[in-house]
Amino acid sequence: MAKCRVCDREAWVKIPWANTWFCREHFIEYFERKVWRTFSKYVSRNHEKILFTVSGGKDSLALLYSLAPRLVREGYSVSVLFIDLGIRGYSEHARGIVKEHVESLGLELIVFDLKKEYGFTIDDLAFAVYNHLFNRPVCSLCGVIKRYIYNLVAYKRDYDLIVTGHNLNDTYGFIMSALTTGQVSELIKFKPYISGGEGFIAKAKPLFFNYEYENRLYTIAKDVKVILHPCPHAPREEHGLVSSYKKQLRILEKNHPGIGLMFVKNILRNVIEPLSKVVQEKRERKLVKCSICGMPASTDPCSFCRIKIKIDKIKTKSYTS
Amino acid sequence: MAKCRVCDREAWVKIPWANTWFCREHFIEYFERKVWRTFSKYVSRNHEKILFTVSGGKDSLALLYSLAPRLVREGYSVSVLFIDLGIRGYSEHARGIVKEHVESLGLELIVFDLKKEYGFTIDDLAFAVYNHLFNRPVCSLCGVIKRYIYNLVAYKRDYDLIVTGHNLNDTYGFIMSALTTGQVSELIKFKPYISGGEGFIAKAKPLFFNYEYENRLYTIAKDVKVILHPCPHAPREEHGLVSSYKKQLRILEKNHPGIGLMFVKNILRNVIEPLSKVVQEKRERKLVKCSICGMPASTDPCSFCRIKIKIDKIKTKSYTS
Repeated sequence: MAKCRVCDREAWVKIPWANTWFCREHFIEYFERKVWRTFSKYVSRNHEKILFTVSGGKDSLALLYSLAPRLVREGYSVSVLFIDLGIRGYSEHARGIVKEHVESLGLELIVFDLKKEYGFTIDDLAFAVYNHLFNRPVCSLCGVIKRYIYNLVAYKRDYDLIVTGHNLNDTYGFIMSALTTGQVSELIKFKPYISGGEGFIAKAKPLFFNYEYENRLYTIAKDVKVILHPCPHAPREEHGLVSSYKKQLRILEKNHPGIGLMFVKNILRNVIEPLSKVVQEKRERKLVKCSICGMPASTDPCSFCRIKIKIDKIKTKSYTS
Repeated sequence: MAKCRVCDREAWVKIPWANTWFCREHFIEYFERKVWRTFSKYVSRNHEKILFTVSGGKDSLALLYSLAPRLVREGYSVSVLFIDLGIRGYSEHARGIVKEHVESLGLELIVFDLKKEYGFTIDDLAFAVYNHLFNRPVCSLCGVIKRYIYNLVAYKRDYDLIVTGHNLNDTYGFIMSALTTGQVSELIKFKPYISGGEGFIAKAKPLFFNYEYENRLYTIAKDVKVILHPCPHAPREEHGLVSSYKKQLRILEKNHPGIGLMFVKNILRNVIEPLSKVVQEKRERKLVKCSICGMPASTDPCSFCRIKIKIDKIKTKSYTS
């Protein structure tokens, strides 16, 4: 019988790359210490008001439970943002789960209702994509919208740090894809912390070094109810580059436990950090103000407003015709 | 029936990532043009005496046939170096094949006999590794020895450029492994051309952008006999990182034809070239002269002399005991 490394009780979980076992209690302790270490190592000390973005999935809830109480104890002001994307049979459920958790943690919940605020839903977008009215997949459009709203809400309400639950597996896929296609400006975004400025609120990813199964295990260990079924708009079988690299990582980990973690740590130090110093300077010179919403962007209108203009036109047309 | 893109005759081969078919004749033309393009794009114009390193395998023979005649026509002086590693049942065969090809191309052949020059063979090394007298695999030791001899022969005989047949699949594996383990000083060696200086002869890898199957196909198209069976010291099943990444590339290519080529091109431009400028400067300051052989190295004694000292001791001991 395998034993917990800390207390010698019967083990509950194995951390393969460290060849270490933990009981449930000490796995929780290990996980929370790891998340805190990432946060305190990478995030600037100058923040006060922190906005957690929570979807109801394993990653964002693992992040909320492992980090928010500690931040409150350390004196930070912490709130939670949930975006109701208007996905039928999914968003209401997610909203209920998130509300329950945020209340039980005694935190403030901000619900941003996409339909109420902007008059459209992700279901509307999915319908338009299905009818070839956009030439990007719905997940990509949804990503633009969510990132825009995170920043907008934080900006309008004076939060100085946004934290998101990106896990290591996603990050590995994105980094490999950006390396392969040569998108250096995308590559340098994959850091545990990006400082803010010029209307962009600083962002932290405290689960940067956490495999997705660690996050899932933490929610199990803590008995945290999460949404387990995938978003109805997610493709059944993904054929993209990011998804292929994520699949490869799962296979690689079997023979080389911890390889993804090693890759992400080393690429961050040796490639992303040196490159981002050079590219960051170039980017700052190129920022413009969106003439529609007034937020800073790299194009005018900004990516969000371009999507909104298009979906508004499509909706008007379908109502009048 | 698929047709050749150039002449409309029946196709002989498909280039998957370009979705293009060629007849045998035009595949040869395509291949030779590609190799020449890599050579002329990356290699400095200042070279005159070129040394091809040829093992008898598909890569080095594809390189020799596709590039050497062109270089001779362009006025370069071209010779071929074959190292007889003293591998029983393998080296004699390779030596015969290489001799035949080099003669048929009318080039000068330099045979370097490891046993005659230094008194030991790769079989001796393999025996020592098997008996745990070295803590590195024999392939790694053999690599050190070959690179040392390439440089030594070129240096002593006034060649100013060494060309080797490294293919894209190997390069992908090595780059991914170096990225993962954070070995930046290894990473920056993976370029199609490294300029020389301070006793190091310049090196070119004109097959840097060629998949190994392209090289094999070229030797088939040209009816070039190559050694097909693997070196007897190669492990039956490889478990290393480089080998895992090479396997992954084969799988990735099925869904994303040309992905390895795209990766290598972009990582070269966006990561290796910028990084090598910074790291190169540091390295130059650290060079020393090996007190045994007098060649420049990063340690004293150099890696080659350390292997030689050790194998000499082992051999003396086993003769006297």
